[in-house]
Formats: sequence, C-alpha cells, structure tokens
Amino acid sequence: MIYTARVKVMPLKDLLDPQGKAVLVGLKKLDIHTIADVRIGKNIDLQIEAASKDEAKSIAAEAAGKLLANPVMETFEVSMDDV
Amino acid sequence: MIYTARVKVMPLKDLLDPQGKAVLVGLKKLDIHTIADVRIGKNIDLQIEAASKDEAKSIAAEAAGKLLANPVMETFEVSMDDV
Repeated sequence: MIYTARVKVMPLKDLLDPQGKAVLVGLKKLDIHTIADVRIGKNIDLQIEAASKDEAKSIAAEAAGKLLANPVMETFEVSMDDV
Repeated sequence: MIYTARVKVMPLKDLLDPQGKAVLVGLKKLDIHTIADVRIGKNIDLQIEAASKDEAKSIAAEAAGKLLANPVMETFEVSMDDV
C-alpha cells in the first residue's frame, strides 16, 4: 500500500535564519506589521510503499535522517497523512 | 496574544519538481527503494500578534498570498498551532 509521509525540516531554534529575516523585512514593506517572527524550512511529501503505516513512518524517518535533513543545522519531524 | 501559524507552500501537482526528482535519485543511491515519489516545498512558521486565532489566520493567509507563495507555480495551506 502507498502511504504519504510529511517531513518537516526546520533550522535549529538557536540558529539565525537569514531567509526568514529577509521575508520579515519584505512583509514590513507590504505593510504587514503584526508578524513578529518568520522561520523558513522545508516540507517534503513522500509517497512510500510499505506494508503498514508504522513501517512507512520508519522508512520516512530513515530517509530524513540520512538525506533530507542536515543534523548540524536542522531538525526534522515526520508525520503521516491519515489514510 | 502571539499565535503560531504554519504555511505549507508546495509546487503545483501538475508541475515537475526537479528538486524532488533529484532527492529520489539520492534515496535510491542510499538503497532506499520503497519511496515512490518525493515533492519538496517550503514550510514557513509565523509568529503573529493578533487578538484572535481567526485574525491571526487571516493575516497568515494574506502574507502567504502576497509574498510567501508564487501562485503561478505553487499552492499554499495555512494551519494554526493549537494554543
């Protein structure tokens, strides 16, 4: 069966996020002043063929740890779409 | 009050996602063969100062429509963190 997993990769909390800071400046130029902070990461949708949801989740976590996220600068979270 | 909104920006379904295809090749080289498709977009966390959750959500949607997503190539979804 095919399962859909979502991997959210975000920069570590203690690190500066220059992309987010740039977007924050852009928002102020568009007269949106109520946004106090922006952090930008990646969202990766995976279609995984597996026997069970748990197996699919562990495959997604393996892929995230090995390739999708850089643990020096990023954290990741895996969530499964409900099927 | 400060609310946290998440904006998920993904490439349109009908468009090729070259970044996702490249990651798919990388996964195969790491001997992960059970992943059939990869699509990569952005995940943007916003800290929004607003009077209510609904107001915060509409501010997030405005920011996403004006600046965060490119409607020619991308769709976006706004979700609120439960507080």
